[in-house]
Amino acid sequence: MRTVFWERDRACMIDQTLLPFETKVLALDTPQEVYEAICTMRVRGAPAIGVSGAMGVVLGVKHVPEKTTEAALEAMETLCPYLIGARPTATNLEWAVRRIWSYAKKIAALPYPEFYAALVEKAMEMADDEVAIARRLSENGAALIPDEGANISTHCSCGPLCTVDYGLNMGVVYAAHRQGKKVHVYTDETRPRLQGAKLNAYDLRRMGVPYTLIPDNHAAYLMQLGKIDMVFLGADRVVANGDTAAKVGVYGLSIAAKEHGIPVYMCCPFSTVDFSKKTGAEIVIEERGPEEVLKVNGTWIAPEDTPVLNYAFDVTPGRYFAGIVTEVGVAYPPFTQSLKDLKKIYDREQEAAHE
Amino acid sequence: MRTVFWERDRACMIDQTLLPFETKVLALDTPQEVYEAICTMRVRGAPAIGVSGAMGVVLGVKHVPEKTTEAALEAMETLCPYLIGARPTATNLEWAVRRIWSYAKKIAALPYPEFYAALVEKAMEMADDEVAIARRLSENGAALIPDEGANISTHCSCGPLCTVDYGLNMGVVYAAHRQGKKVHVYTDETRPRLQGAKLNAYDLRRMGVPYTLIPDNHAAYLMQLGKIDMVFLGADRVVANGDTAAKVGVYGLSIAAKEHGIPVYMCCPFSTVDFSKKTGAEIVIEERGPEEVLKVNGTWIAPEDTPVLNYAFDVTPGRYFAGIVTEVGVAYPPFTQSLKDLKKIYDREQEAAHE
Repeated sequence: MRTVFWERDRACMIDQTLLPFETKVLALDTPQEVYEAICTMRVRGAPAIGVSGAMGVVLGVKHVPEKTTEAALEAMETLCPYLIGARPTATNLEWAVRRIWSYAKKIAALPYPEFYAALVEKAMEMADDEVAIARRLSENGAALIPDEGANISTHCSCGPLCTVDYGLNMGVVYAAHRQGKKVHVYTDETRPRLQGAKLNAYDLRRMGVPYTLIPDNHAAYLMQLGKIDMVFLGADRVVANGDTAAKVGVYGLSIAAKEHGIPVYMCCPFSTVDFSKKTGAEIVIEERGPEEVLKVNGTWIAPEDTPVLNYAFDVTPGRYFAGIVTEVGVAYPPFTQSLKDLKKIYDREQEAAHE
Repeated sequence: MRTVFWERDRACMIDQTLLPFETKVLALDTPQEVYEAICTMRVRGAPAIGVSGAMGVVLGVKHVPEKTTEAALEAMETLCPYLIGARPTATNLEWAVRRIWSYAKKIAALPYPEFYAALVEKAMEMADDEVAIARRLSENGAALIPDEGANISTHCSCGPLCTVDYGLNMGVVYAAHRQGKKVHVYTDETRPRLQGAKLNAYDLRRMGVPYTLIPDNHAAYLMQLGKIDMVFLGADRVVANGDTAAKVGVYGLSIAAKEHGIPVYMCCPFSTVDFSKKTGAEIVIEERGPEEVLKVNGTWIAPEDTPVLNYAFDVTPGRYFAGIVTEVGVAYPPFTQSLKDLKKIYDREQEAAHE
């Protein structure tokens, strides 16, 4: 089952805030509902929020008061930036919204019913694309895991929930598992939202991969004890030199891995690479509210007026990574060159797809 | 108010598991109750559990069925190892229990009522000693903080609650604050038991020191952003070469600090230095149950049968520390020599105190 899909003219997605204790599928009918679902992380994971954003655009077109293509395109002028603003750090949301937006401009000659139907098709195609990308990426990454298996450390969760299906870093692990490699995963619980404890552990169990849940502060010590062989992570935005925004905690984990000579592989669809930014210093890091830290499962862990800092992401310089795993191949240091090289393959594939 | 004290023939202590939302003082009457309070971390912090352990010995003597000094000393043969076993990693518990035990042997000639009264006096004296030690240590550490102030990172909590009064690393911060230095503290929440969020934030507020609560995984990124100047931590066991067992997460934090050239100071009473162990590899690290990780405020964050690893401490090699702050002075690298030098001062003081 896919975690984001289009059904009965609605954007459907698993409400990830209720997992692992309840599996509920939301059927969203308006762009405002999609915006809310992205903001509150009912849907999360860079590729999944990209597809959701595109579906939000389609819902806006569906509900445009005057049923004309012209009115729909005009509405998009505010609708698309609005949806892009739901979360600032991940590339995919902006990339996906812009992709369906520019497609809409291309088919501006179609009458409204055909225009709308074509956008629905496009959103579904984008979901299919994400699945295909995740599958290719997973295979590329799995090749890096030795045949005899490995103990793998990870942070946050980029499994099937995050990418419509398969997953990024966890897709790699699942692919290795399917190939018969003996993998065991140490999954960080990932404070404050506990995606590791609530989502990644849920996926790992479903997929039958042995795992151990640890508090975020355990990983460095497990490295010292020789219990971790490799680190696989998911990226939210990679820039031209390999600097990467990922779930907060990835930076500390990467430093610890470097200190122990353990390779760190960053995984992302190639669309996550933002060549418009030269270094990580240009990435806008989302700061979220204090309640995420101060409340766990609805109960307070500290008084409501406690001063809190809650970054959703951090930036890790590219020099900490052994490789960046994408669907078009693995980039190795120096990344400024290797990402450029992969871009040629990517662009060629994109052109071929549009012929 | 002291956090551990002797009153009406009982061992009294603030129940730290109920803070910050409820302040309740336990009045324990048996060594079994003290053992339980230490195991379940109602009392925590190396010096505080040391004093509690000594009081547990006194309570055992109080309740010995046959009211003779001989029977009391015989009971101690099982009672003392039992109390020492309540938590294995911190030195102070064993050190304090052995201290009152060897004192008991010295006064074996006293009749039971005087014997018991002398042990009560001794336990109260040990509490006074801890306060005096924490105060001296705090002054020694505060001298390391620049006059213009500093942004200080810390993990877990070793404030007044931990040391009967004053504190170790936090005692240093409070001393600097009293001296008028502008300090601001980033306090890690410290999963799984959230001592940072529940106890350290509580103390910082009480003491009027500006602070910000952060998830454990934020510190490395704050270092990258230049928001942290120094790290002050509390130790549970330091060995001859400076290797240190401290709250799990200290190792990762120390690696991150080293990566950014930020000095890390480890703080402990000199009695925490265990010269019987040459390196950190000899330290027994306590592993605690999975429920601490899986349940927060009594609610589950992941299914009950999730495989979990939950170390209470980790070991950080001495090479990560800029200094080890004790009541008899600050040891600087190489620690094998500097700790030996401080031991001479310490031994001289101990002898003087017993003259």
